[in-house]
Amino acid sequence: MMPDGGADARAGQLSELKLIRHEMLCSGEMSDLLAQAEEAAADHLNDWQRTNLARMRRAWRHATALPADLVEALSRAACDCEMKWRSARINNDFKALEPGLDELLQLSREAGGAKGALMGCTPYDALLDQFDSGATVAAIDILFGELEDFLPGFLAEVLEYQAGQPSLVVPTGSFPLEAQRKIALGLMADIGFDFAHGRLDVSHHPFSGGVPEDARITTRYSQAEFLQGLMAVLHETGHAMYERGLPREWRLQPVGRARGMIAHESQSLIVEMQACRSREFTSYLAPKLAIEFGDSPALRADNLVRLFQHVERDLIRVHANEITYPLHVMLRYRLEQALISGDLRVRDLPGAWNDGMRTLLGITPPSDADGCMQDVHWAAGLFGYFPTYTLGALAAAQFFAAAKQRRTDILPSISKGNFKPLMQWLNDSVHQHGSRFSCDELLLQSSGAPLGTAAFKAHLHARYLPD
Amino acid sequence: MMPDGGADARAGQLSELKLIRHEMLCSGEMSDLLAQAEEAAADHLNDWQRTNLARMRRAWRHATALPADLVEALSRAACDCEMKWRSARINNDFKALEPGLDELLQLSREAGGAKGALMGCTPYDALLDQFDSGATVAAIDILFGELEDFLPGFLAEVLEYQAGQPSLVVPTGSFPLEAQRKIALGLMADIGFDFAHGRLDVSHHPFSGGVPEDARITTRYSQAEFLQGLMAVLHETGHAMYERGLPREWRLQPVGRARGMIAHESQSLIVEMQACRSREFTSYLAPKLAIEFGDSPALRADNLVRLFQHVERDLIRVHANEITYPLHVMLRYRLEQALISGDLRVRDLPGAWNDGMRTLLGITPPSDADGCMQDVHWAAGLFGYFPTYTLGALAAAQFFAAAKQRRTDILPSISKGNFKPLMQWLNDSVHQHGSRFSCDELLLQSSGAPLGTAAFKAHLHARYLPD
Repeated sequence: MMPDGGADARAGQLSELKLIRHEMLCSGEMSDLLAQAEEAAADHLNDWQRTNLARMRRAWRHATALPADLVEALSRAACDCEMKWRSARINNDFKALEPGLDELLQLSREAGGAKGALMGCTPYDALLDQFDSGATVAAIDILFGELEDFLPGFLAEVLEYQAGQPSLVVPTGSFPLEAQRKIALGLMADIGFDFAHGRLDVSHHPFSGGVPEDARITTRYSQAEFLQGLMAVLHETGHAMYERGLPREWRLQPVGRARGMIAHESQSLIVEMQACRSREFTSYLAPKLAIEFGDSPALRADNLVRLFQHVERDLIRVHANEITYPLHVMLRYRLEQALISGDLRVRDLPGAWNDGMRTLLGITPPSDADGCMQDVHWAAGLFGYFPTYTLGALAAAQFFAAAKQRRTDILPSISKGNFKPLMQWLNDSVHQHGSRFSCDELLLQSSGAPLGTAAFKAHLHARYLPD
Repeated sequence: MMPDGGADARAGQLSELKLIRHEMLCSGEMSDLLAQAEEAAADHLNDWQRTNLARMRRAWRHATALPADLVEALSRAACDCEMKWRSARINNDFKALEPGLDELLQLSREAGGAKGALMGCTPYDALLDQFDSGATVAAIDILFGELEDFLPGFLAEVLEYQAGQPSLVVPTGSFPLEAQRKIALGLMADIGFDFAHGRLDVSHHPFSGGVPEDARITTRYSQAEFLQGLMAVLHETGHAMYERGLPREWRLQPVGRARGMIAHESQSLIVEMQACRSREFTSYLAPKLAIEFGDSPALRADNLVRLFQHVERDLIRVHANEITYPLHVMLRYRLEQALISGDLRVRDLPGAWNDGMRTLLGITPPSDADGCMQDVHWAAGLFGYFPTYTLGALAAAQFFAAAKQRRTDILPSISKGNFKPLMQWLNDSVHQHGSRFSCDELLLQSSGAPLGTAAFKAHLHARYLPD
């Protein structure tokens, strides 16, 4: 909603609030208070309170690891670099991004080093921990290794299989924005989004934000193409349902928040990928599209599900399909490790990116704009974030498989637009626990195993190679 | 934009920020820092810096006068009372409002007393000072006394004059919201509103907020009636132009802000009342309305200007005209003084209100909902705010008269939709000075006299009794 000219003032407001929070967390008495509480914990605190205290200690550790001037420098450099990224990407001018990105990388490395020294881990593990506590290269390497053994071959098989199918009908025409919004609002209501406590708006990039009592999600609409905007709404609704389902009695306490980005991404992907690209949901959606856009072969259920499950070797992560997405993430995961360790210099990033794309996906980006500058993350200082997308996809498949096994009415209900059985299971198994358990613990409790690749692979097999 | 269910969380966020600000202002070192700076001021500070320091001291004085628990209690009681007011007004149930309002009044009296003790003035003068520094009962009584001598007789004359005119054509029909919004956006652009640094949105009550770099104004639209929504936009645009015109080099400093609510209200009323209810503006507006709504006798310039200048003995302040508005304000000014001093008890407010309406306006409210519960101000803890509306109207007339005298092209330009001469004069005379001068000083510099009633009375005469 913000006009462009408000960006500087908003950045100033946010960085001021960040600094105030940092100063509060790092105030002299905080350390004593935490130590006193920890001493008394065994005798006087219940499980929720103990986890809450541990989450406080974690937040304190991340904050105190950094001197205030580094916090400010990081915040300022990230704002500047993100602004530079916008024009550099439009102009396909990596050289214009390089100095700012290099400065931001140095500061991020410094931050990772300071946090790692305090936490007894590598700088990159410390950065990973910011987005999901306990995530480590050692654990991720195993999962990503299994995916790399599987995905390239599987991708080739699926491409061959889909090439043998009758050709896909791509929806064309003009899809009125008001009709797109109406469909989106209807589906949000079906999923259980509470409009007394949230809104759907428009922005350049879809996101979900706000607080549990006022969950804001956004999407973008295009008159020529409606599926991207619609899938973004479903994705962000999954995030919002998680936030709204967090335990109310722990509101404003660390244990009352979502535990990390892996569990969070799993909730958006369960809705978008697992539930809403299914044959069952498509059969519910198709007649709704026909009412708003008129009947056409492209919008019938049989074609629609094939659109939802269409696979290609794509250049752009945000347009990627379930099979190629992890390959995009692996590329970034490796490159950012090399950037943080110093093995890769910023100026060598474009070449390394293109090499990686060829190896992992078999294609070469035609430009840096559609290559190493396609994502805002690094230019916004988010090193260590990318893996959570794919770990979230693995978790989504594993949660959803467990959910379907425990409640056989989930998919039949979704075919009637009824998400209650799914949402009830997700609330019981994930949302209501706040930060009490790690994603591994949640998975262990609900699926019998910690995070793995088996459910994801089984899901891909069942969906993409049904024979 | 906020969904209803977000109100509690938002109130919590705002009161937390309020408390943080209060604690910062009242921290131990602040007092020493101010004293040190004041000692060095004469030798080392220029005029802007000295005023800036004086504004800091003023903010410090208002903050330190109140203990933190009173700040919190006031904030909580105001939130609660405002929520109760909403339902009490709808149900016309003053009894339901009474206990909450009484509690809030006690707390406000306590705050006024604490501030007054520190500032050496009465509790009510201290409350007035919150909204416009230096405003006092002694000064307001003189101005309001002059108005009371003039307005009731003048009102009767105008009512008689207007009764002798041909009857007014009230616009009827359905006025599409999109067309209303389009007209509003066009007029905002004419006035000079910068859409790279602001937005127009919809809310239950029109307001203007945000920061100079991101000025947000709102209005409400009704399909059956478009003038109220449109005049609200013009009013709020006047506020926003002031904010946007504040001195950029003093951004985020006290001296860089608007000095008080009298000058602020004068800027909104110059646009809404002085400029946009003029014959010149109406001749510019009428063809625009015809394009969007179709040609009709009600929308022609001659009828439109009479709609803009129509006078009646109205029950509701926000619907009042320029002549009755000050009478509505005087009623509230007297009642709130009596409430704060303890001369009037909350339970006797409805009777005192109705007595006052009979005396000042010659009508009796049919209900408390349209009587003493019509405004949110007291239920939101705003005691001492009302006078600024009428003092702002006086200042608006005085500024505008001076502007027209200095720049004779102002009204001719407005008849062509060109507000540049007016806005340039306002920027030179008011906006660019931030808080450097009091409203009286600004008026003295630009009109040759401090705030008075002469220009306002001359304006009313010229507009409402043209013969």
